[in-house]
Amino acid sequence: MKAAVFHGPFNITADNVDDPKIKAPHEVIVKVLAGAVCGSDLWTYRGESAAALESRIGHEFVGEIVEIGNEVENLSVGDWVITPFRYSDGECAACKAGWQSSCAHGGFWGWDSDGGQGEYVRVPYAQATLVKLDEPPAAAAVPDLLTLTDVMSTGMHAASSAKIVPGDTVVVVGDGAVGQCAVIGAKLLGAGRIIVFGGKHPDRQALAKQFGADEVYSARGEEATATVQELTGGFGADVVLECVGSATSFATALTLAHPGGRLAYVGLPHGVSVDIAKLFRTNVTVAGGLCPARRYIEPLLPKVLAGDIHPGEVFTTRLPLADISEAYRQMDKRETIKVLVTP
Amino acid sequence: MKAAVFHGPFNITADNVDDPKIKAPHEVIVKVLAGAVCGSDLWTYRGESAAALESRIGHEFVGEIVEIGNEVENLSVGDWVITPFRYSDGECAACKAGWQSSCAHGGFWGWDSDGGQGEYVRVPYAQATLVKLDEPPAAAAVPDLLTLTDVMSTGMHAASSAKIVPGDTVVVVGDGAVGQCAVIGAKLLGAGRIIVFGGKHPDRQALAKQFGADEVYSARGEEATATVQELTGGFGADVVLECVGSATSFATALTLAHPGGRLAYVGLPHGVSVDIAKLFRTNVTVAGGLCPARRYIEPLLPKVLAGDIHPGEVFTTRLPLADISEAYRQMDKRETIKVLVTP
Repeated sequence: MKAAVFHGPFNITADNVDDPKIKAPHEVIVKVLAGAVCGSDLWTYRGESAAALESRIGHEFVGEIVEIGNEVENLSVGDWVITPFRYSDGECAACKAGWQSSCAHGGFWGWDSDGGQGEYVRVPYAQATLVKLDEPPAAAAVPDLLTLTDVMSTGMHAASSAKIVPGDTVVVVGDGAVGQCAVIGAKLLGAGRIIVFGGKHPDRQALAKQFGADEVYSARGEEATATVQELTGGFGADVVLECVGSATSFATALTLAHPGGRLAYVGLPHGVSVDIAKLFRTNVTVAGGLCPARRYIEPLLPKVLAGDIHPGEVFTTRLPLADISEAYRQMDKRETIKVLVTP
Repeated sequence: MKAAVFHGPFNITADNVDDPKIKAPHEVIVKVLAGAVCGSDLWTYRGESAAALESRIGHEFVGEIVEIGNEVENLSVGDWVITPFRYSDGECAACKAGWQSSCAHGGFWGWDSDGGQGEYVRVPYAQATLVKLDEPPAAAAVPDLLTLTDVMSTGMHAASSAKIVPGDTVVVVGDGAVGQCAVIGAKLLGAGRIIVFGGKHPDRQALAKQFGADEVYSARGEEATATVQELTGGFGADVVLECVGSATSFATALTLAHPGGRLAYVGLPHGVSVDIAKLFRTNVTVAGGLCPARRYIEPLLPKVLAGDIHPGEVFTTRLPLADISEAYRQMDKRETIKVLVTP
C-alpha cells in the first residue's frame, strides 16, 4: 500500500510500505477514506520535531473497518469510523476522567502506530478509540466529519477549557484551521463577541466571519494589544484562545485578557515559557493543552450530521495521497488553510 | 508617631515618623489596633525586593477611623475597619469586575501609601477600600479579623481560583500562614481530602490538621511527587494550591495534579517560569495570582464573627511595634508562623 513517509526536512512523499497487520486482539485495520495534513505536521516537515527519518506521518483520518481483532466488541467490519488524533485504551484513570490525551497506553499516529496519511492504518485499542457512525455519511459531510479527528475537537477544547459563558468577549489568536474551529467552538458556547487576530489572507478572514467572528484583524504584538484595549474600553477580553503556539503569539495572547480573564491554548507550544510573576499581577488563568479529542467527537457529531456547523470548510484544497508532497508545500507556504488527502 | 522603617537588609526598626495627614478628600486616617508581618515582607527584609531604603512597610492592619476626608460616605470617625492589603478605588473596570487587585488607581501599603506596621495609616479611596464592622469586635476575634486583610483572603483565593468542588482531593504546598489558610479555604469549599506538604515543624503540622488537613507530609521535590502518586492510585490530585512561590516549589506543585487537574498559586512568585510544553501534555490549568482581598473580606466576615473558622491561630507570636525587629527575625528564622504586631 501507499503511505506518506518523512525522509527529512521538506521531503515527505507517498511511498510503498508494508500493509498493516493486526498485532494484538484489541486492534482493527481501518481503510482510510479521507485524511488530512495538520499544521502540527509542519513541525516535522520543517525538521523542527524529533521525528525519525523514514517515519510515517499524519494523524487525522476517517474510514472503514476492514479487519478486526478477536477482542474487539461493538465494532464490525464495514463500520464507518472517526479516529481521534491519538489512540487510547479507555480504561486507565486518565481515560475514565475524560483525559484520553494522557492515556497510560495511548499513542500518536505516525509516532506510535501507523501514520494517518496512508491507505490503511492499524488502530490499537480500537473499541475505546474509534467512534462509529450508524451508517456511512453523505460524501458532502466527510470533510466536516474529518475535522472531528483533530481541529474541530481542538478548537472546541480551546473554547471549553476557557470556560466561555454566554456573552463573553472572546479573542481568537490564529486564523489557521484550529483558530477557525475555535471560532465555531466559541460561538457554540454562546460568546457574545468574537474577535480574530490572524494574517492578511482574505479567504481566512472571510471564513472566520462565516464561522461567527464579529471582527477580524491582522495586527500582531503591541498593535494587537492596543486594538483589544481599544475594543474593550481599556479593560481587555474575557477570554483569549491561543491557537498558534509560538512564543511571540503566546506572549501577545497573555496581554489581551482582562484582569481575572482566561486564556486557553491548544496549539502545540514550541519554546513557550511563561513568567508567572507577570500572570500574578493580572490573575489571568492559563488553561488548555493537548486536546482529548475522543471526548469531543460524540457531542459534536450530531451537530455535524445535522449541518449545524460546517468545520469542513477549513479544507480549501483537496489532493490525492500521491501528491502529498504538494500538499505539504501548500500548507507550509500558507497557500491553503488545510488540505484534505484522498488515498 | 512610630512606624516600621526598612533601613536595608535585616534592618527594620520602629522609628519616629511624621503623623499622616489627609491629602485628598477620599481618604481617612486609621489608628492601627493590630498589624502583622507577612511572609511576603521577608522579601524586603532579606533585600530581595526593590524596596527603597527608609521606606515604610507592612500591609496587614485593622483599626479605627480617627479622621475622615470630605468626600467619604458611609464611614465615620470611630468605625472599626478591616483593610485589604491593597487599596482600590471601587470604580474602575477591574474593581467593578471584582479584581480590586488590578485597580487602575490602587496601590500597596508601604509602597504607595503608609505602611501598615505603624500607629496610623492614611487610607486612599477609603470608602471603597475599607470594610467596617457594625460594632467593635471582641478582643479575642481581632486575630481572626486581622487575617482577612491578607492571609485568610489569600488562602481562600487559592481555593476559589482552583475551583474546588465538593469531594476534591486537594494538595496544599506550603505550611506558612497562607498555606494554613488555604486549608481552611479548601475545607470551606468542601474538599474531600486535604494533603499538606510543608516543613517538619510540629506546630505547623498540628495547625494544618486543626484547620482540616487529613494528612501532613514534609516531603519535597520528587519525594512529594511520589507520595501524591501513591496516595492517589498513581493518578494525581484534583487540585494543587501552591502557597510558597519559589521556583522549586512551583515546579513540584505542577507534578502533583492529575491530567486535567487545577493548580492555583497565590504566593508572590520569585523567578518562577513555566514551560508551557510541559503543561500541554497534562492539561493542568494554572490559575490564581495576586488576591483581590477586598472581594473576600465581606463573605468571610460572618464566618469569623460566628467563630466558624479561626484563621487567627496562625499568629503564634504577639509583639509590640517597638519590637518589630525581633518580629522580623522570628519570621525569617521560621521560629513562628506569623507575628501579630500591637502598636
